[in-house]
Amino acid sequence: MKIIAIDSSGLVASVAVFEEKLLIGEYNIQYKKTHSQTLLPMLDELKKMIELDLDTVDAIALAKGPGSFTGLRIGSATAKGLGFAMNKPIIEIPTLDGLACNLYGTDKLICPIMDARRNQVYTGVYEFVKKDTTVVEYTLDTLVSQCAISVEEITRICNEFNREVIFLGDGVPVYEEKLSNLMRVPYGFAPAHMNRQRAAAFGVLAFDYYNEGKAVKAEVHAPEYLRLSQAEREKNEKNSITEG
Amino acid sequence: MKIIAIDSSGLVASVAVFEEKLLIGEYNIQYKKTHSQTLLPMLDELKKMIELDLDTVDAIALAKGPGSFTGLRIGSATAKGLGFAMNKPIIEIPTLDGLACNLYGTDKLICPIMDARRNQVYTGVYEFVKKDTTVVEYTLDTLVSQCAISVEEITRICNEFNREVIFLGDGVPVYEEKLSNLMRVPYGFAPAHMNRQRAAAFGVLAFDYYNEGKAVKAEVHAPEYLRLSQAEREKNEKNSITEG
Repeated sequence: MKIIAIDSSGLVASVAVFEEKLLIGEYNIQYKKTHSQTLLPMLDELKKMIELDLDTVDAIALAKGPGSFTGLRIGSATAKGLGFAMNKPIIEIPTLDGLACNLYGTDKLICPIMDARRNQVYTGVYEFVKKDTTVVEYTLDTLVSQCAISVEEITRICNEFNREVIFLGDGVPVYEEKLSNLMRVPYGFAPAHMNRQRAAAFGVLAFDYYNEGKAVKAEVHAPEYLRLSQAEREKNEKNSITEG
Repeated sequence: MKIIAIDSSGLVASVAVFEEKLLIGEYNIQYKKTHSQTLLPMLDELKKMIELDLDTVDAIALAKGPGSFTGLRIGSATAKGLGFAMNKPIIEIPTLDGLACNLYGTDKLICPIMDARRNQVYTGVYEFVKKDTTVVEYTLDTLVSQCAISVEEITRICNEFNREVIFLGDGVPVYEEKLSNLMRVPYGFAPAHMNRQRAAAFGVLAFDYYNEGKAVKAEVHAPEYLRLSQAEREKNEKNSITEG
């Protein structure tokens, strides 16, 4: 089984290719270019390097959201285009779940945070739990599903768990000072090679999703924004003023 | 501070670029091509994508060995060439330490294993220890320094620690059955996105090394093979027969 994994939900543009459970290639960029300048050229480059025949690909794994609206649309458009042309399904992975998967094997709580602007973050709370006591093998457990809330709210939730926490994601540098003021339990941050979205992590989750039958036709896939876009918000505000 | 990180010690060819503690780009390939076909073209591609001016780079981080002899020579030659041309130092990272760094934050023992042929593995035993109790921040501790020993020997050592272990590295698929016969404590394997060399992990370690003054001139760098090459071994055997 071969999977292409794509993520452009945040600041990183990321592509990865798996053959069975072997990561045969990945390419990640976090640079001041738009995802439309990076994502497809990166996939094209990777495809050439590993001599990938698209006909042999079984599914496309995608960070489905939340995240940057434009980023999500570019990722979704790319995945839909590929999936439609190749007649292959899309495996939609919640962005925050994929981020949490970077920290496989930690015994701490995992709290990914992405800057959602307007004083909110996209976040969630996760932990890796051992499948049983005889082997060291974990599944990702969701304690708080991905959501858009304030930093005050997510730190309150983390403090209530009363367990040590590792934060990661592009929201960390934005809210580091606030976290330091609000956190009451010991916490830390993931190091640089583990603190941003990585298509490879989404790909690993995608194998489980696929085996559970969780894949959708390319035509029906849509990103999960979790919030209204600025345009929709302004339209609603305008309407409510007009109606008022 | 800007660091280029390079690894071609095993089956993966891997390059990464850091600007301060931000991973701005990485490219990893594990495909049936030689490192001479992949490593430098990958760095060139990455350099273009992130518009990297080599004059702004401060150091080159490198998996110094052990590993495949040819792979190490290609990595070293690339790093030495770059370092010499740019007049920048090389930060030599022990291969097994870099591999262990993939599992930042786990509370288990970490045992990377690479196939060294001739019934040996390159291996070591590591753990992440918390710097202090008030923050969740770890340093990598070496319990058994990297070495070339048999699987029987490393599993005996792991069993003696009497702690749960996570294995990773390209030696895992080669020795999986043997591990299952020999291990007496619960153990498991790192998932696909964390189970092979990643230049990005070496880069993260390199910042610490650099701050501790551990960098060498490109001219003096040499790979650490840990064992004699086949040619050297055969020459020695021939000499001892002649002398005998």
